Amino acid sequence: MATALQSLQQHLHQTRLLGSISSALYFDQNTVMPAAGADWRGEQLALLATQLHERQSSSAYADLVAAAEAELHPDDPEPRHRNLALLRLELERQRALDPALVAALAQAQSRGNAIWQNARQRNDFAAFAPALETLLALRAQQASQLQAAEPELRSPWEVLAQPFEPDVSKAQLQELFAPLRAELPALLDRARCMDAAQGRAASPEHDLPEPVQEQLCSELLASWGYNAEQCHRARSAHPFSCTLGPGDFRITTRVVRGQPLSAFLATAHEWGHSLYEQGLPRGDDHWFPWPLGEATSMGVHESQSLFWECRVARSRAFAQRWHPRFSAVLGGDPWGGEFGFWRAFNPLKPGLIRVEADELSYCLHIVLRYQLELDLLEGDLPVAELPQQWNLLMQELLGLTPSTDREGCLQDIHWAEGLFGYFPSYALGHLISAQLAMAMEQALGPIETQIATAQESALQRWLSDHVWLWGRSLNAGELVQRVTGQPLRAEPFLAYLRGKLERLETGP
Amino acid sequence: MATALQSLQQHLHQTRLLGSISSALYFDQNTVMPAAGADWRGEQLALLATQLHERQSSSAYADLVAAAEAELHPDDPEPRHRNLALLRLELERQRALDPALVAALAQAQSRGNAIWQNARQRNDFAAFAPALETLLALRAQQASQLQAAEPELRSPWEVLAQPFEPDVSKAQLQELFAPLRAELPALLDRARCMDAAQGRAASPEHDLPEPVQEQLCSELLASWGYNAEQCHRARSAHPFSCTLGPGDFRITTRVVRGQPLSAFLATAHEWGHSLYEQGLPRGDDHWFPWPLGEATSMGVHESQSLFWECRVARSRAFAQRWHPRFSAVLGGDPWGGEFGFWRAFNPLKPGLIRVEADELSYCLHIVLRYQLELDLLEGDLPVAELPQQWNLLMQELLGLTPSTDREGCLQDIHWAEGLFGYFPSYALGHLISAQLAMAMEQALGPIETQIATAQESALQRWLSDHVWLWGRSLNAGELVQRVTGQPLRAEPFLAYLRGKLERLETGP
Repeated sequence: MATALQSLQQHLHQTRLLGSISSALYFDQNTVMPAAGADWRGEQLALLATQLHERQSSSAYADLVAAAEAELHPDDPEPRHRNLALLRLELERQRALDPALVAALAQAQSRGNAIWQNARQRNDFAAFAPALETLLALRAQQASQLQAAEPELRSPWEVLAQPFEPDVSKAQLQELFAPLRAELPALLDRARCMDAAQGRAASPEHDLPEPVQEQLCSELLASWGYNAEQCHRARSAHPFSCTLGPGDFRITTRVVRGQPLSAFLATAHEWGHSLYEQGLPRGDDHWFPWPLGEATSMGVHESQSLFWECRVARSRAFAQRWHPRFSAVLGGDPWGGEFGFWRAFNPLKPGLIRVEADELSYCLHIVLRYQLELDLLEGDLPVAELPQQWNLLMQELLGLTPSTDREGCLQDIHWAEGLFGYFPSYALGHLISAQLAMAMEQALGPIETQIATAQESALQRWLSDHVWLWGRSLNAGELVQRVTGQPLRAEPFLAYLRGKLERLETGP
Repeated sequence: MATALQSLQQHLHQTRLLGSISSALYFDQNTVMPAAGADWRGEQLALLATQLHERQSSSAYADLVAAAEAELHPDDPEPRHRNLALLRLELERQRALDPALVAALAQAQSRGNAIWQNARQRNDFAAFAPALETLLALRAQQASQLQAAEPELRSPWEVLAQPFEPDVSKAQLQELFAPLRAELPALLDRARCMDAAQGRAASPEHDLPEPVQEQLCSELLASWGYNAEQCHRARSAHPFSCTLGPGDFRITTRVVRGQPLSAFLATAHEWGHSLYEQGLPRGDDHWFPWPLGEATSMGVHESQSLFWECRVARSRAFAQRWHPRFSAVLGGDPWGGEFGFWRAFNPLKPGLIRVEADELSYCLHIVLRYQLELDLLEGDLPVAELPQQWNLLMQELLGLTPSTDREGCLQDIHWAEGLFGYFPSYALGHLISAQLAMAMEQALGPIETQIATAQESALQRWLSDHVWLWGRSLNAGELVQRVTGQPLRAEPFLAYLRGKLERLETGP
């Protein structure tokens, strides 16, 4: 006779199977599916989404959760308590929603995406505005329905941000983002002066042939423990990482013309995401397919990808180690030595496009989006004034003004799908990564020393032992507190940037 | 208010969606999935199989079919009648089966496959024998349960063959295979003498580098109307073709060391399968996702792949046209002229392995398997005597004796999964292809004339207009009768082989 907990686990296992089938279809769609397959694929995904939603909100499932709760004893292990608490919270959220709203949102997201694609291409914000208004209204309605299920009082934006960043609050973000907003523009200015003083040319005209980039990406992954028995690497229009099963991981990259280091850095980034997924707790059958076996937040996920992309692959020691290899494969050195090579990894130049931004300006792109989505959702910013407001803030934060909305408020897909509350996780990733790296250095000594001697496996081990193993046992804030002994702060990230800038200013 | 027919169509549409999700997972599994993903993938596929079986046998579905039948009027279009008749037949078959037997069979197939993999590797037939006995017993039981649903009296083997080759009978196969058995060994002997007379060397030592093979396969497909918007081509251990949606087709090939033409011919073969799938009736919404939108039999499917592989790609005209291209890409001519190149496409040498057999010996491999599975299932051949019987027949038909069971009765996967009744479709494909080609030549003139002038699109058009458009409106026999004005016979295939042999004997 199965216990209630076993029955629940069985249910969750099947839910996970269905969800991972969606992931497999998503991977196929974005790597190899021919264009004419799109409509049918959309129908397949919608069918699975319906089944998933049914499994996660049915009264049969609610009964399973309730039975497992009734069976729970105060002496039971803490993880079991937390698993059930997390499931209960998700369930209450699912059940707080009016099914009619769920359907309306799904339709509005799909329409929003299509209209945005078109509007962006034609640089026509007015064509997109009504869809954005609809999405804002529906999301506001969703937030209001979800309020009932929240364990504490949360603003509409906070409610919507919970799925990405559990327990995030506006107060916390205000505290974290204020120092970024205060200091990053000055650092960018310093970088501009440095460029002028060093007479630094625009990015070099050279490019790396595709097979060379492919080869270097493979070598990078091989040196970081890539195992083809567990991971498959493919090409896609936008790099991503996904998990198809407990032993089946995928990452993708793309080669961008004129950006010889783009694929290499994207590979480092996506591999960082995948390492986190591969390192999540799996051994104990209480942890898979239970919530505790999942990543704890998008911010923590991003901290792992950014660690490998920025802390490791953009470091001086890494450039020193790889410079000979790049030069050999290319049969030349267009960077004029390892210092120039390192500089190529760190342009530190503000631009209009978020996904092309480097460490120095990235968070300002997020500060801008966060403020605007707050104004749209909770303030009094009318949708019609979004482009103007975007451009004003862009000038204030980055000293640039987009010449078109395509390079301005139409550049990202998130709002077009009604994803409000998501952007801050990207910036949190930078801050968490920096603060975790500080703790790591206290334990292991300078990260660059490990990199110089190709000991990245020691860094991986440390992350595995201190970060990955927790799954959702700790939320992002608790994790940082636990690992670093301090609440999350902006200072470690800023200190890291100041240090990098200083070394760049010093020169070769 | 939806009609019963519309409700039924809706149900079939969702069933088709689920089935095509399985196909997508299968494609991923055989092209890119990392090895460690296998167990989870197995669970995903099992979940979908359960859902599919439920949808195809539930009483809710039975009610939908019954309601559509009740709504049917004698004046309704013939395709509607046939669609419902085919659905009724499938449904009765599904419902005739004891669910316990279905489960036992699924388990036995999965175990059979695993045990066979192992036994084959260790060349240990005795280890496989008990699994084969179990599968035979379960299939016999299945056949006996299915008898009740059959519209006419059928033997156990005939019942099991129906899903692959609707309406096939032993009497028909006896009539078709007897001339093959009588004449093919003599033709093989003639080919042997020709080799001796021409002092033909063993296959040349050269090989084509992988990128060259890749390039030539791409050029072949481009010349045959391949459209990357609708089809994706990948690599897999065994070449296959599959359909993931109404606009989403996939084919795979592999490069075999030491067999420079293998990938090229496999590409032609799989593209032939895919062309049939791409040409099935889709326009009329009565035909998709209805049965009439499906391929009519495995034999007809194979006739389409064999047409492009054998009739076209192994023809003299094709060799003449491609010889300069192969020589240019390779930078040399190891075949010593276009005649030698054509010979390389037509080894006409018997071997022990079915999947490596050419046109002259392939059907003898099938005659052997067909006779043995009849003896196992309906006769008195004990499983323990299978290896000995196999070797005797192999000597009689092909003049060869396997030195191990791995090269004998353990070579194919079909019986290990309990697939009895499948093999004859391969041979039927050769016969159907030859008879259709005869009709095509009566209409269009010699096929080789079209090939010589790169007019393969005319051949495609003819197949589309005379074969593909029928879907399951006609079964294989009816299709051949309709297109050629004659029942299916062995003579056109034998005449074609005699003609090819004669031209080869004549020399350059």
